Amino acid sequence: MAVNLYDSAYELEKAVRESDEYKALRQAYDEVNADPSAKTMFENFRNIQMELQQKQMMGQDITQEEVEQAQKTVALVQQHEQISKLMEAEQRMSMMIAEMNKIIMKPLEELYGAVE
Amino acid sequence: MAVNLYDSAYELEKAVRESDEYKALRQAYDEVNADPSAKTMFENFRNIQMELQQKQMMGQDITQEEVEQAQKTVALVQQHEQISKLMEAEQRMSMMIAEMNKIIMKPLEELYGAVE
Repeated sequence: MAVNLYDSAYELEKAVRESDEYKALRQAYDEVNADPSAKTMFENFRNIQMELQQKQMMGQDITQEEVEQAQKTVALVQQHEQISKLMEAEQRMSMMIAEMNKIIMKPLEELYGAVE
Repeated sequence: MAVNLYDSAYELEKAVRESDEYKALRQAYDEVNADPSAKTMFENFRNIQMELQQKQMMGQDITQEEVEQAQKTVALVQQHEQISKLMEAEQRMSMMIAEMNKIIMKPLEELYGAVE
């Protein structure tokens, strides 16, 4: 990778680190992790989410019971102020990443899009 | 997304566009697409590849026949000079993208890595 590519990538890394989105995410993350019961609740939610995603990707059936359990967990974490804040911060962060990627990948999109 | 994030992302986009990796990819791509038989051969290869990947992701079985057909297609495109060049250029491009992503995503890696 050429020097100016590295430089530009590190420049963008710095901008990410200093962004409001990242600072808010960092703070929300620290708050949830500072509270053991919130931390456990959040980890539990994440695990259930990942299990279901994995099943979906593998084309496995998801039972009615699993759907209900997942809905209960979502409802539970949504009522938790710190966790909701963290989830919102994560969502804003992924929107930012998606926007960045769209910009950076434009040259490739042009190339592959032009051929279709 | 804040102004300096956009600026940095566009800076990086420019660096990607001006990189040797991108220029080489663009040239290899144009060469394959300028040759109808190479273009068809490459598209055929891509389709077979995508079908197999999709099956794999869905957890579906891949038959011995499909494996053999895929191997034959790989052997065929590897013998084609322009297509091999394109495939190598694509590989270098994805390595570059992976490196860039690793740099840009460092702040997130630090955050989520620190909690494990």
